[in-house]
Amino acid sequence: MVSDAWLALSQAAQLAPQIWLAALKQSGSAEALVAESPSALLAMGLPAEGVGKLHSPDVPLLERARRWLAGPNRGLVTFGSALYPPRLAEIQTAPLALWVEGPDHALLSAPQLAMVGSRNPTTSGRETAEEFAKYLSARGLTITSGLATGIDGASHRGALLELGGTIAVLGSGPDVIFPRAHERLAAQIVTRGLLVSEFTPGMEPQKFFFPQRNRVIAGLAVGTLVVEATRRSGSLITARCAGDFGREVFAIPGSIHNPLARGCHFLIRNGAKLVEEAADVLIELAPQLQLDLADAPPEPAPDRTQESGLGDDPTYRNLLNALDFSPVSIGDLGARVQLTPAELSSMLLILELEGLVEALPGGRYARLGKRK
Amino acid sequence: MVSDAWLALSQAAQLAPQIWLAALKQSGSAEALVAESPSALLAMGLPAEGVGKLHSPDVPLLERARRWLAGPNRGLVTFGSALYPPRLAEIQTAPLALWVEGPDHALLSAPQLAMVGSRNPTTSGRETAEEFAKYLSARGLTITSGLATGIDGASHRGALLELGGTIAVLGSGPDVIFPRAHERLAAQIVTRGLLVSEFTPGMEPQKFFFPQRNRVIAGLAVGTLVVEATRRSGSLITARCAGDFGREVFAIPGSIHNPLARGCHFLIRNGAKLVEEAADVLIELAPQLQLDLADAPPEPAPDRTQESGLGDDPTYRNLLNALDFSPVSIGDLGARVQLTPAELSSMLLILELEGLVEALPGGRYARLGKRK
Repeated sequence: MVSDAWLALSQAAQLAPQIWLAALKQSGSAEALVAESPSALLAMGLPAEGVGKLHSPDVPLLERARRWLAGPNRGLVTFGSALYPPRLAEIQTAPLALWVEGPDHALLSAPQLAMVGSRNPTTSGRETAEEFAKYLSARGLTITSGLATGIDGASHRGALLELGGTIAVLGSGPDVIFPRAHERLAAQIVTRGLLVSEFTPGMEPQKFFFPQRNRVIAGLAVGTLVVEATRRSGSLITARCAGDFGREVFAIPGSIHNPLARGCHFLIRNGAKLVEEAADVLIELAPQLQLDLADAPPEPAPDRTQESGLGDDPTYRNLLNALDFSPVSIGDLGARVQLTPAELSSMLLILELEGLVEALPGGRYARLGKRK
Repeated sequence: MVSDAWLALSQAAQLAPQIWLAALKQSGSAEALVAESPSALLAMGLPAEGVGKLHSPDVPLLERARRWLAGPNRGLVTFGSALYPPRLAEIQTAPLALWVEGPDHALLSAPQLAMVGSRNPTTSGRETAEEFAKYLSARGLTITSGLATGIDGASHRGALLELGGTIAVLGSGPDVIFPRAHERLAAQIVTRGLLVSEFTPGMEPQKFFFPQRNRVIAGLAVGTLVVEATRRSGSLITARCAGDFGREVFAIPGSIHNPLARGCHFLIRNGAKLVEEAADVLIELAPQLQLDLADAPPEPAPDRTQESGLGDDPTYRNLLNALDFSPVSIGDLGARVQLTPAELSSMLLILELEGLVEALPGGRYARLGKRK
């Protein structure tokens, strides 16, 4: 049962949530905070508009909130409560409370990857989002996104194809589905995953709610993956929040002729991890998530021959195998492998540049790398 | 006039050039080195095969070298001579001498960008190589590459469309053009740019000469740009050499479904600069090259509103303009801009996350960033 104090507070705190969060932490509880006098609240630095709302809430909105809460699988998850997701609680601008609908509100604390991107992606970008989400969902990650058209929708849909959960964070009240075209998708999500919002039931989406909402997406997740985004995309705000919160940022590159790759390239230049395959994300996050990677390809061993592509060349491979960790002359090597001194010399030079071989006095060579 | 000592030395030093270079530096001159007894040379760590060649050179090859040198615009540029390019001389494995053909051998020391990539690029990759080379050539950079089919050829061709020079470094003697299909391109290059090789005239290309040649491409240039390359491409050797030599490495991203982007993505993950436009390369290299960038777009000023895309939004722009560097309340702000408190609050939260605005006690806000 949600207390009157929390209902009033969640309404009031929509103005400047970060200041209210500080005040809540200072007071210790919603009840204690609401019990403060207006002058005490103002003295705590809270904005007059919000303080006014706290003591004379918008009654129709409160009633709507109560009606919404009466429905199945719904709740208000408040800061400091057991269900409030610890990752989100870490951030300074954490919302005071989340309106949540879905069968298991504990999913809020499940390991999540935020997947976001353009509302108008290419067909290929949409498919990539769906494939990545499906792959990661099958391996236990929950996919969190914003229910927008384009990359967001494709990410939710991909996640629903497998067993992992999916969380849609809204830029409106939890009962106001936007865009309307995603009402069916929202209905699917609510049976298996979660619809989440910091906005009171009944609140219509506003242009400025979406960037605000993006910090919640980034704050819930261990990392944020941007699939396709222009340089002006709101996804870059989500990515920046993720970076500011110390979370991983991933981006998928694309053709330099695709404007929808520009946002991703901007992120990569600024430190985001370049991702080519869904497994890349999993490998990167595995240590933090302690996921079972039995199904994922193992992280490639650091093998410099592999890195340079030389390991794929049987002639180089043979030569490396013929080399010892104790010095050997080109003449002796020539007797071991079927190569002329000129060929040998060129190959040894390359292997030396690659740091695999050491050139020693007397024209002798020794293998490097595994020496004790 | 090329000395007999240098002709013999350049032939002998094709085995293990790095050891010969050390010996040359120790002796002080080719003449002094050639005058040493075999036992003294062996004692200096030189390989027996090369020492043998130094004192009994391959006479037909020497004669071919002399005949080649008799042609117009040809020469042997030796380590330590005025024409030997200082950038190449910096590297430990610098070739002892370069066979050079072209009207102005001083081009060897001109500011160069190495452009390399797949022999089987996509049409788009080929066009990109040509466009980048043309743009950079028009702005004074010399384009250095390997005369191979695909990206190499397109890079040389693009450079020839403008006034800058172009240098082709061969994996064979300077008179052996490979692939044959590029004989006409080589003939064009030789009238305006340079053909360069460390291999004696008459030497046929060998598979293992190409990776060895790649270090020369990387060593001549200020930076190396990889346009399109698979994970196994020899271009990655050029890029790795460039990195090892402390030069810039650039790579052009592509679709994750394009195998020819994989090599570039590998490089970007390992620290190469992601490049979307030719101007990116120029901007990055400008400080080192002291190029006149009058024709290039200016480097964008670091503007965080621009980075997040918020600067493009007139509402955010208006709000930022309405904010002072001294604190102002939401109420006062609301009177300045046509926004509701809810809208204002959301926008201010985002601006705060962006580090553009500071939230202060009393629900007041101040602009950040330009404060003293």
